[in-house]
Amino acid sequence: MSDTESKPATQPLYIRVNPRDNVAIVVNRGGLPAGSRFGDGTMLVEAVPEAHKVALNDIGGGEPVLRYGVVIGYAKRAIARGSWVHEALLAAPDAPALDQCPLATSVPEPLPRLNGDTFMGYCNADGSVGTKNILGISTTVQCVAATVAYAVKRIKAELLPKYPNVDDVVAVTHHYGCGVAIDAPGAVIPIRTLRNLALNPNFGGEILLVSLGCEKLQPARMIPAGALPVLEQEPSVSVLQDATNGFGEMVADIMTKAEARLQMLNLRHRVPCPAAELIVGLQCGGSDAFSGVTANPAVGFAADLLVRAGATVMFSEVTEVRDAAHLITARAATPEIAKDFIREMAWYDNYLAVGGADRQANPSPGNKQGGLTNVVEKAMGSVAKSGTTALMGVVSPGERATQKGLLFAATPASDFVCGTLQLAAGMNVHVFTTGRGTPYGLSIVPVIKVATNSGLAERWHDLIDVDAGRIATAQATVEEVGWEIFSLILEVASGSRKTWADQWGLHNEFVLFNPGPVT
Amino acid sequence: MSDTESKPATQPLYIRVNPRDNVAIVVNRGGLPAGSRFGDGTMLVEAVPEAHKVALNDIGGGEPVLRYGVVIGYAKRAIARGSWVHEALLAAPDAPALDQCPLATSVPEPLPRLNGDTFMGYCNADGSVGTKNILGISTTVQCVAATVAYAVKRIKAELLPKYPNVDDVVAVTHHYGCGVAIDAPGAVIPIRTLRNLALNPNFGGEILLVSLGCEKLQPARMIPAGALPVLEQEPSVSVLQDATNGFGEMVADIMTKAEARLQMLNLRHRVPCPAAELIVGLQCGGSDAFSGVTANPAVGFAADLLVRAGATVMFSEVTEVRDAAHLITARAATPEIAKDFIREMAWYDNYLAVGGADRQANPSPGNKQGGLTNVVEKAMGSVAKSGTTALMGVVSPGERATQKGLLFAATPASDFVCGTLQLAAGMNVHVFTTGRGTPYGLSIVPVIKVATNSGLAERWHDLIDVDAGRIATAQATVEEVGWEIFSLILEVASGSRKTWADQWGLHNEFVLFNPGPVT
Repeated sequence: MSDTESKPATQPLYIRVNPRDNVAIVVNRGGLPAGSRFGDGTMLVEAVPEAHKVALNDIGGGEPVLRYGVVIGYAKRAIARGSWVHEALLAAPDAPALDQCPLATSVPEPLPRLNGDTFMGYCNADGSVGTKNILGISTTVQCVAATVAYAVKRIKAELLPKYPNVDDVVAVTHHYGCGVAIDAPGAVIPIRTLRNLALNPNFGGEILLVSLGCEKLQPARMIPAGALPVLEQEPSVSVLQDATNGFGEMVADIMTKAEARLQMLNLRHRVPCPAAELIVGLQCGGSDAFSGVTANPAVGFAADLLVRAGATVMFSEVTEVRDAAHLITARAATPEIAKDFIREMAWYDNYLAVGGADRQANPSPGNKQGGLTNVVEKAMGSVAKSGTTALMGVVSPGERATQKGLLFAATPASDFVCGTLQLAAGMNVHVFTTGRGTPYGLSIVPVIKVATNSGLAERWHDLIDVDAGRIATAQATVEEVGWEIFSLILEVASGSRKTWADQWGLHNEFVLFNPGPVT
Repeated sequence: MSDTESKPATQPLYIRVNPRDNVAIVVNRGGLPAGSRFGDGTMLVEAVPEAHKVALNDIGGGEPVLRYGVVIGYAKRAIARGSWVHEALLAAPDAPALDQCPLATSVPEPLPRLNGDTFMGYCNADGSVGTKNILGISTTVQCVAATVAYAVKRIKAELLPKYPNVDDVVAVTHHYGCGVAIDAPGAVIPIRTLRNLALNPNFGGEILLVSLGCEKLQPARMIPAGALPVLEQEPSVSVLQDATNGFGEMVADIMTKAEARLQMLNLRHRVPCPAAELIVGLQCGGSDAFSGVTANPAVGFAADLLVRAGATVMFSEVTEVRDAAHLITARAATPEIAKDFIREMAWYDNYLAVGGADRQANPSPGNKQGGLTNVVEKAMGSVAKSGTTALMGVVSPGERATQKGLLFAATPASDFVCGTLQLAAGMNVHVFTTGRGTPYGLSIVPVIKVATNSGLAERWHDLIDVDAGRIATAQATVEEVGWEIFSLILEVASGSRKTWADQWGLHNEFVLFNPGPVT
């Protein structure tokens, strides 16, 4: 980053997203004091923190407050021009009624096809393409996790060095599999998630499965016959309760079977693959008010590029999309896709209601400190990641994506649940935007972290891969940063560049979404 | 183990628990063939697997089948003497109606006081006593987990060797803290669990807390002022978003603060403590039909010894106690305690019903293979762990135990959720019985694993600490194994003997009980 790029704005500066907006967010690092005057003559009547909203007009009590051209709330009392428009002043609007959402009424025209972009990936027998070459060890149940961890430590130390073409060994451990209501309606989600995690392209179909033996989630229930050929062709299942000579035998059995898989994985090499083979998952975590004007629009531009290249792009996070439901359904390619989207929204509305919550459980205190007043404002920024193309499909939680183009993967907004479900959907590259900052990472796929503001990118120079904050200070355009992200996706997918998360080995745990009870 | 002890029974042998029982379980290793004749003249009309039930009389269709002197089911059709009484033949009875449970109607007389037993423990400022001396690193949110894991690896390698009196470094990482409905009714449980985990006696009050900064579960909400003095007296909170110079600074900050805690912990020494300072958590996992006649009664006898020594003993696992509710409420020391117990049962009934399940989601396929027909039979075996003393209190999930004597800690039966909640309740030794076998372990406290059958104890010689299967073959009495367990508890609490789980470092993850939704 050059000196010029890192220099904070010195003139009072705000960003208004849409000409209809009567609020804008303060760009200046550290915020602005009372008396600051913007170029349009608006003068602050009080101090406004960085990323927080300032009223551009006098707003009467009860009148709508607009950002992104949509109503993010109603003024609880009169707000004078130049005031700080914060949480206490706004009443949130209701979520859009799902039965009134327009179905495929403004389907965007396809953008021009983008040809010729490639990355160096691993071709799999099932037609998917990996961006890493990982020995995956799936597990049916938490009971085996500590034993698997013990074995993985030894595999990494004793076996992995002999197989230089294999990038890593990842145990897919989790909290499911027993002590859960496995026949409850919600159980289908964690079970199919575990199955589809094992099918992630970066495991190359060479999975090893470790079972305890007596658990509710038996191997054949987790991965039905035919779903993963290696489990039937090779000795690829280790059942701890089959051990007749204790812990030593368990570990030896896992290691023997792991080495057989390592030998197969080691034969693989990267080959040029079209960008159309990418399955990119998009997510934000620790958002701020810049998210919707810098990082997320840039990611959205990159999403459009990916769609133009024929790839699959998933956006997610139901509670951060719910308030934009009517905008998404209008963009759906067909009424059926719009209805699929509505079905997922309705399911989640009910799921939250049963638990005594609603979408306003989001945002977090940090989001609010970052200028996000409520979930409506957060949602409008969040969906910017989806770019401008038509919605081509909806992926239910834990299911695998099967279409190309822009998809909505219906996941919770929780970073780790979302990431895990996107991995199950078949994701091979993850792009994560953050304003407050989080040292997020996943073990199975590379995670590109995009900062919404330059302050974070500078402070966390060894964690943030892309600084989209330059957009706020007009040092780069949305398009420029979008192209930068697109190029970086191809590079990290090729293994020719490491993300910071991979550099440090920052790999968060898998977190399953289990709407069913534990027992 | 001597040759005599390990020799399987050669004569056809069954165990009838109660004189009223019309079924008994086959003891012989590997089961018995048709035609086998028992000492009472009962001849098998078909093969019966080990641990499975044989009919001792002709049982008419619709008639009750009794084990432990209670009805575990009703015969779906006539069952001839000598038949295998399996799942398909039994209709499960309803769970006892909670509004008809007797309240403190048969309170056991106190057993004679047991004086003089001690262990070598660590005295804490809050009056609790530790059985290990561990640097605990608590976390508010999953976002910090990978960074903390990175730091812990370095702390163990670079710092821990300088502080020989400190046993271990344990990061209390988890899936809660953000992306959850933190104001939903169920949220109180995971939040107080995290707070009370930080207060576990084996952390000695010298906890380090790592926060991201923007998460919903802020440090002050997780651990309110006054709950843990070190957090206010010393620089014991590391907030990652405070880092102005990236990942390196985050790790350095955690390590600096960790070293200050290590210095304090290193000053501690074991001193003789009365057995009354023990807080022993009891649990079973991978049960079989032997559980209720060997390991669990022996653990129950040890529980009685602990109560007689003035200690605290917790049994748990709501779904495995539900069918014995009327027996427990009768044993409650007061009607108020019985009502507390009923309140927890009713809460869980509702929790399961909301999720579309009931107590019969338990048992697991392995339990059934191990001879347990249904949750009623499993429950009757499970509650044997509670011994024979009066119930002195009920601990809601995530709360800390404050009474002495026998307590019911109302937790799910899931091994890891139960263990985590017992740790939050203040447990300093864990006793775990298993029939099918599971390589279970916890990082914070020693876990003594007791096998229900000698076959398992022999096969898993380097994982099982106590073989209670000797009771089935009359090579030891319940009382003898009970005393053995009691002595072993004192030894492992003193650090003078290592459990197998600690020998191998088998430490499963913490699993929080979160009945609320994720967002």
